Amino acid sequence: MAFSERIDRLKSSLIREILAAAQRPEVMSFAGGLPAEPMLPKVDWAQMPTSMGQYGMSEGEPMLRELIAAQARELGIQCEGSQVLIVSGSQQTLDLASKLFIDPGTEVLVEAPTYLAALQAFQLFGAHCLEVPQEADGPELGVLRQRLEQHKPAFAYLIPTFQNPSAVRYSEAKREAVAALLDEFGVTLIEDEPYRELVFDQGSATPIVSRLRSASWIYTGTVSKTLLPGLRVGYLIASPDLFPYLLRLKQSADLHTNRIGQWQALQWLGSQRYNEHLAELRDFYRLRRDAMQAALVEYFSDLATWETPQGGLFFWLALRQPLDTRTLLKPALEQDVVFMPGEPFFSEPDRHPGYLRLNFSHVAPERLGEGLRRLAGVIRDALAVEAA
Amino acid sequence: MAFSERIDRLKSSLIREILAAAQRPEVMSFAGGLPAEPMLPKVDWAQMPTSMGQYGMSEGEPMLRELIAAQARELGIQCEGSQVLIVSGSQQTLDLASKLFIDPGTEVLVEAPTYLAALQAFQLFGAHCLEVPQEADGPELGVLRQRLEQHKPAFAYLIPTFQNPSAVRYSEAKREAVAALLDEFGVTLIEDEPYRELVFDQGSATPIVSRLRSASWIYTGTVSKTLLPGLRVGYLIASPDLFPYLLRLKQSADLHTNRIGQWQALQWLGSQRYNEHLAELRDFYRLRRDAMQAALVEYFSDLATWETPQGGLFFWLALRQPLDTRTLLKPALEQDVVFMPGEPFFSEPDRHPGYLRLNFSHVAPERLGEGLRRLAGVIRDALAVEAA
Repeated sequence: MAFSERIDRLKSSLIREILAAAQRPEVMSFAGGLPAEPMLPKVDWAQMPTSMGQYGMSEGEPMLRELIAAQARELGIQCEGSQVLIVSGSQQTLDLASKLFIDPGTEVLVEAPTYLAALQAFQLFGAHCLEVPQEADGPELGVLRQRLEQHKPAFAYLIPTFQNPSAVRYSEAKREAVAALLDEFGVTLIEDEPYRELVFDQGSATPIVSRLRSASWIYTGTVSKTLLPGLRVGYLIASPDLFPYLLRLKQSADLHTNRIGQWQALQWLGSQRYNEHLAELRDFYRLRRDAMQAALVEYFSDLATWETPQGGLFFWLALRQPLDTRTLLKPALEQDVVFMPGEPFFSEPDRHPGYLRLNFSHVAPERLGEGLRRLAGVIRDALAVEAA
Repeated sequence: MAFSERIDRLKSSLIREILAAAQRPEVMSFAGGLPAEPMLPKVDWAQMPTSMGQYGMSEGEPMLRELIAAQARELGIQCEGSQVLIVSGSQQTLDLASKLFIDPGTEVLVEAPTYLAALQAFQLFGAHCLEVPQEADGPELGVLRQRLEQHKPAFAYLIPTFQNPSAVRYSEAKREAVAALLDEFGVTLIEDEPYRELVFDQGSATPIVSRLRSASWIYTGTVSKTLLPGLRVGYLIASPDLFPYLLRLKQSADLHTNRIGQWQALQWLGSQRYNEHLAELRDFYRLRRDAMQAALVEYFSDLATWETPQGGLFFWLALRQPLDTRTLLKPALEQDVVFMPGEPFFSEPDRHPGYLRLNFSHVAPERLGEGLRRLAGVIRDALAVEAA
């Protein structure tokens, strides 16, 4: 059987396999990025017109596009509805952008760590990923400049607000500096913001794309983290030079995004009840964040260091004694606990051992402590074996 | 701006642009493949569990996969639910198969004519398409054998039942012969069957994949033509050697297909009310087919030849005096009529002038005659200019 060359680069997906394992009800899952079941809003379909069952436009529903553009303008992004493309979840933005930019060997710039499904999508198309280390307030600017001086990446892929996995939110200063650098070197920015609305403090952060003066850009978001992921409705907004290509790639990929999910999203975005839902969601997740922080202090203080996330869905732990956390997955699953090893969030996994991503949104608080106690035990056992 | 090499192969999409033009209510559209609005079934959402809003499995909903496998077995396809992948409309099958098989220069075998969005997807990834001419009962077997002897295509893409655009249904003999040839040369079959259920006579046709003994295969279908295209729910069934790769490619493309549409499809497929709906749909479309046949006899007998379709949604007209039908699109639109030129359904459009695809499902019968009268006038005018 002769497959395409890219199939050699197709990795088995930890996300998918762990999500599959996490289906067992007895498993306490700190993996995945699943919203909490109790916070999935009840939605009503009775008013949906039958016409939503017909084929639609590849661009997406016109009213939804206008609404998303209006909200983006409130964030400071100068754009029109004509620049908005509704996608089948923001994962599809990664597929479309890969098709637009990546040939085998094309260089792209990513944070280290970065979202692993983005790495997989870029690498599937043959990208060579240039890493820029992530600090607590955003990327190391010196390394970023160096990369841009020495390379000509097709784009920079950044998740500046509550990054998955590190939970880092770029400072205002770094947002400005990154925008200036991308303008200076004429590098396209792909800014991925699934977690913007899941914020637990009063901090805000204007998107980097709104600070660009000349560079091209794609900004992508989703309703998956705040409404219902099962709808598979995300969006991208692109600078006018990129939009027509992305639209045609979208049409070739799946004609258009399902209209029933688009209709439902339109009922919520910008509405009073959506704002109330977001407020409840933040309160709910803040409590879970606090519960995990307390449990981590209890069980992990001697094992790892971490920053308390101010938004998003994850804690990012750095083990004091690094070991390959992928080796912990099997013993953890035997204890009915599952987490996400840190290595796959780097383009060169073996060079970055010793990180764990822990989701705090999904496990019920009453089981949280027990789960983390078991996980800490698994790590202690592994360290003891290493020391022996 | 440095785009990927494949963007040079990204064609503007006639489908998309014509669908956009056809949104104007005054336009009589014989383009597209839109189901008739009055036949979109009323669907009920009240019983859908909230959990359908959560993330799901990349494979699709387990019960839907089992149901589709059971129905495929009734068609003679030996398969299990584990071989079924739910996709975001069967267009996505073309994207996934392209990723699995096609590098720049990879040869693939297609019918001439064939589905234009398939051609676009394959060519976007760099395929070189080998054409096999379509006859009234299926492909020219001599040419098919010759192609297989002289080339080693990565797959054969066939639409054996009421092909879009030609409406051809392969005979039993040709189905057997094609399966034997693909087995003999070890070439993978992609069998695309969106129109199987839209049949107007008593004829049936067992899928070609069910006749294969050794070749690998992908069979793909959809609920778009019989239930609601706006759900964007299709499926593929693959031989076990191909399935794991297609699953990972699906996960990288958009994580999973929207669950709300999957849930709705599950309420219908195989049910009594679905069978009743299908019977009504066939009666409805048969009447429209007959109405178009009568109007074509009235206005096109001296202009074109055609076979009366026994299923599907299209008439395929061959002009008695071939001309580039793409040049007719603008004058037709000025008369508020739109159709699909035949050239884009061939991998080498300029070598195949003189065909038109006319959809009979969408235009109301009372406007059908007027639309075809205008279209015939546009063709007569063009022929008169050519003759002058």
